[in-house]
Amino acid sequence: MRPSRAPTVSPEIEQLIELLAKTPGLGRRSAQRAALALLKKRDALMVPLAQAMLAAAAKVAPCGTCGALDTISPCAICANPARDHGLICVVAEMGDVWALERAAAFRGSYHVLGGVLSALDGVGPDDLRIGALAARATAPEVREVILALSATVDGQTTAHYISERLAGLDISLTRLAHGVPVGGELEHLDDGTLLAALASRRPG
Amino acid sequence: MRPSRAPTVSPEIEQLIELLAKTPGLGRRSAQRAALALLKKRDALMVPLAQAMLAAAAKVAPCGTCGALDTISPCAICANPARDHGLICVVAEMGDVWALERAAAFRGSYHVLGGVLSALDGVGPDDLRIGALAARATAPEVREVILALSATVDGQTTAHYISERLAGLDISLTRLAHGVPVGGELEHLDDGTLLAALASRRPG
Repeated sequence: MRPSRAPTVSPEIEQLIELLAKTPGLGRRSAQRAALALLKKRDALMVPLAQAMLAAAAKVAPCGTCGALDTISPCAICANPARDHGLICVVAEMGDVWALERAAAFRGSYHVLGGVLSALDGVGPDDLRIGALAARATAPEVREVILALSATVDGQTTAHYISERLAGLDISLTRLAHGVPVGGELEHLDDGTLLAALASRRPG
Repeated sequence: MRPSRAPTVSPEIEQLIELLAKTPGLGRRSAQRAALALLKKRDALMVPLAQAMLAAAAKVAPCGTCGALDTISPCAICANPARDHGLICVVAEMGDVWALERAAAFRGSYHVLGGVLSALDGVGPDDLRIGALAARATAPEVREVILALSATVDGQTTAHYISERLAGLDISLTRLAHGVPVGGELEHLDDGTLLAALASRRPG
């Protein structure tokens, strides 16, 4: 079923398809389609994309302070004096920073852990930027650490572990509220969310 | 809603996401996920993929005879003396060649048109490799031209046009059979396919 068996596909194209298929979001079939489309748009897309990848590979690195990906360290957020550096929002991945920045609802700084604790995947505290967070949180200007981790078992385990690590410090430790998603319909919500939304009900 | 509005995404990352999002199969969201995954697997995936793209961009070109993409011209199929060069299978795109090679059911040669005629998209006969096919079909060894084009309006228009162009030649012009797909269930088939399968019924 795989064209790799057919000797009529040139090794260069086969290599391109195999590497594209390793990119999340592209399976083998869509990697073939993508390879063909790239070969058709060689100058408009394939070469610029390859150059963008090499540029990003050479320049993008985690910020020494917060772990966010940027071409400068400290990153644009950590270096921005207009942001509130007394407020640290702890997230698992860089994608979470993008989601929060897109919402434009947060003006503090971030701390990107680089994942969550996971016994199954063998991710322990030393694999995440938890030590760096503990060190950052001792700075006198830090007032609050928001644990913005997913409401999954691993996310909540990680939040719990960080709470314990930061327990002795004179800072507020907060978490994102659980509740009904804005625009979400009640009848499609799971029981856990409904219970949490009821328990945290507010005066109307 | 797009991170491009957030000045906190570095231009290198933004450029990478924008170009990834232009790749068929990846939307804006999946391009972000892919960019993050690539940045995480820099040496194992991002740099090799960029190099594979540059290598393919530099080396892969349409075969001068049949139009198939390969690093050599004539391509591996056209140059293979074990293939039957009296039999030309006309397809729209390189992906069709891969599909037929995967099935390993065809031992002739191909002719890749580079698309199908489309009034809507402004694709005329001169935009496809139809002239080259007409020239190839006059060679004395050519016995049969199989029109393996999609059973869509544009595909069938293209097949009809090619039939007319090749009308005066002393060759067989054939098309793929219509019928029930192998493994397909009758109750889910469209009426056109059922009619075609009935009309072309064979003795059991």
